[in-house]
Amino acid sequence: MVSSFADIIRPTPVVDELRARANIAGMAAKARRLGLELRPHFKTHQSVAIGTWFRDEGVRAITVSSLGMAAYFAADGWDDITVAFPYNPREAALAGDLAGRVRLGLLVDGDEGLRAAAALGAPARVWIKIDTGYGRAGVSWKQPEASLALAEGLRRSATLEFAGILTHNGATYQAKDRQSLLISHAKSLARMRDVAALIGDCPISLGDTPACVLAEDFEGASEIRPGNFVFFDLMQRALGVCNDNQIALAMACPVVGVRSDHILLYGGAVHFSKDFVEVGDQRRYGCLSEEAFGPVDESSPLIGLSQGHGTVRAGEEAAKLKVGGLAWIYPAHSCLSADLHSAYRSRNGACIPKWDGGR
Amino acid sequence: MVSSFADIIRPTPVVDELRARANIAGMAAKARRLGLELRPHFKTHQSVAIGTWFRDEGVRAITVSSLGMAAYFAADGWDDITVAFPYNPREAALAGDLAGRVRLGLLVDGDEGLRAAAALGAPARVWIKIDTGYGRAGVSWKQPEASLALAEGLRRSATLEFAGILTHNGATYQAKDRQSLLISHAKSLARMRDVAALIGDCPISLGDTPACVLAEDFEGASEIRPGNFVFFDLMQRALGVCNDNQIALAMACPVVGVRSDHILLYGGAVHFSKDFVEVGDQRRYGCLSEEAFGPVDESSPLIGLSQGHGTVRAGEEAAKLKVGGLAWIYPAHSCLSADLHSAYRSRNGACIPKWDGGR
Repeated sequence: MVSSFADIIRPTPVVDELRARANIAGMAAKARRLGLELRPHFKTHQSVAIGTWFRDEGVRAITVSSLGMAAYFAADGWDDITVAFPYNPREAALAGDLAGRVRLGLLVDGDEGLRAAAALGAPARVWIKIDTGYGRAGVSWKQPEASLALAEGLRRSATLEFAGILTHNGATYQAKDRQSLLISHAKSLARMRDVAALIGDCPISLGDTPACVLAEDFEGASEIRPGNFVFFDLMQRALGVCNDNQIALAMACPVVGVRSDHILLYGGAVHFSKDFVEVGDQRRYGCLSEEAFGPVDESSPLIGLSQGHGTVRAGEEAAKLKVGGLAWIYPAHSCLSADLHSAYRSRNGACIPKWDGGR
Repeated sequence: MVSSFADIIRPTPVVDELRARANIAGMAAKARRLGLELRPHFKTHQSVAIGTWFRDEGVRAITVSSLGMAAYFAADGWDDITVAFPYNPREAALAGDLAGRVRLGLLVDGDEGLRAAAALGAPARVWIKIDTGYGRAGVSWKQPEASLALAEGLRRSATLEFAGILTHNGATYQAKDRQSLLISHAKSLARMRDVAALIGDCPISLGDTPACVLAEDFEGASEIRPGNFVFFDLMQRALGVCNDNQIALAMACPVVGVRSDHILLYGGAVHFSKDFVEVGDQRRYGCLSEEAFGPVDESSPLIGLSQGHGTVRAGEEAAKLKVGGLAWIYPAHSCLSADLHSAYRSRNGACIPKWDGGR
């Protein structure tokens, strides 16, 4: 097994295909059981190769976070794509092009966005983004009349189709425990139903990995859009959303220094991102596993990141590492870690290409 | 002026060439005045085009943070390159190749690293990395006998050349004020002189932007390796190292939402990185400027970042923004923000290519 990693010479994101496929199959089965369309968010993996694993589970419609990412997946034959990001009028040329080629979903949360989408002059499905309390983007659930006005504008449009209302309840990521997470989800969903009732029966789209994994009540919802679940990570583990055996992305990092209190890795902020899980006063950017994809070793967290350096506390497993070896680190936030790379390595050694991020 | 930005449709790093050139000229003049070699760290900009601005100021020797980055600059004719990162034995093939083509500097901080560098069988200059108290990498200054043993090993080597001792006193970034920053620098330098005295007179290399800008005492040092100063950023500004008119990198981000309390940008963690400056309890990932490269508007900080979204408090300048317009944000940490992109835009509209990061 170890020999297939001998040619890893730099910090490298490695995917466990069996785990990822199991994660996908589990979510697809749950969506079928609950009568929900699964429209997974592909911003997590950003890979047409991994996209085929979703196709194998019957997924035909996807979510992305930018028009550039939509174009990347459209080129691979995906033809039902929601860009779950407030419509950016500066990308009208690309949006118009895509709307002519695929079933394109866009988001608006105000008059400017609606006017800009209408100015496309191309067919697009438009979702009204609702803020159910997270406070980032969307029309506030407290102002359903504003959503009603947008819906009426959409229903009058000659080119745009009113798709429904959509939310992302990121508040579940801040939940202290499973119960408060479920309460947050239920509250968000109830607010969506209230808005839908006012503006006339319409589809409801929602989706964050914590709620999609843990909740059972999706009454009134028509589709879910979780993304992170394909890989999971330490944040999801800390929330009780996954266990060690479900984390499907790990960073293989060359060990370049061994000290009494810590291990120094080639693997820094530019390979992991600086997102972290807080454990007490400690910021953990990742955590060492026993060998490749083994159990998490809580005693060996990744506690420091500079541009290229990573510092792992010399806990039980870390203390066994040697200069020239590889350390296997589960990242705090797999979406951001994956985004930093232009390809993955599979556990069997194969290269898994991904989008370059268009940056 | 605004018209040259009309074709910016996505989050884009923009460089003010005049400011960057002034920053380079200022540091080059200071190094000449103090009799120090300026070996700037190119991990900040990672661009052969910006490298020419350093050549114009007489810079001939550079620092990089990985062998891959060394290869990128070597291909552009740079032939005196120190890789200021503990030698990674897994990249021996590339290191050996580079050592045969350029004057290559490597770092070791232990026996394993020394043996691995010796195994290259290629000429390389080797610096002993010293930890003067920062606690990340290097032989502790409290164990000068360990450094002496490494120096003796290097002096006996048939292929390796002992270059001297090198440190990075990252502690200056944690300084509370200018005086404690200067004390930290003086302490680090004194410890380097102590180590050098024990192992026999040898070159001393040091360099962090805060000390290189603010300090005047570099007694005993032979070269400095600052990097961030080419762009500066909000962290350096918070440390009193630069003023608003010296920050040479800004992110131009499309505005996609306007709310009463905040402005929503297309510009998230994948465009800025999640490094932040703490102001009281608030994490600031960046701050809006008045128009392009204007003064920092403290009332409009970038207070939230998710994967693609940025949230700017609706302060004085932010409140003037409209959907479809551009927001100009100085990043908290320019090195990490720049790293996320494969090219810059110049203020005059030209494309400035950069390394893709080899990831």
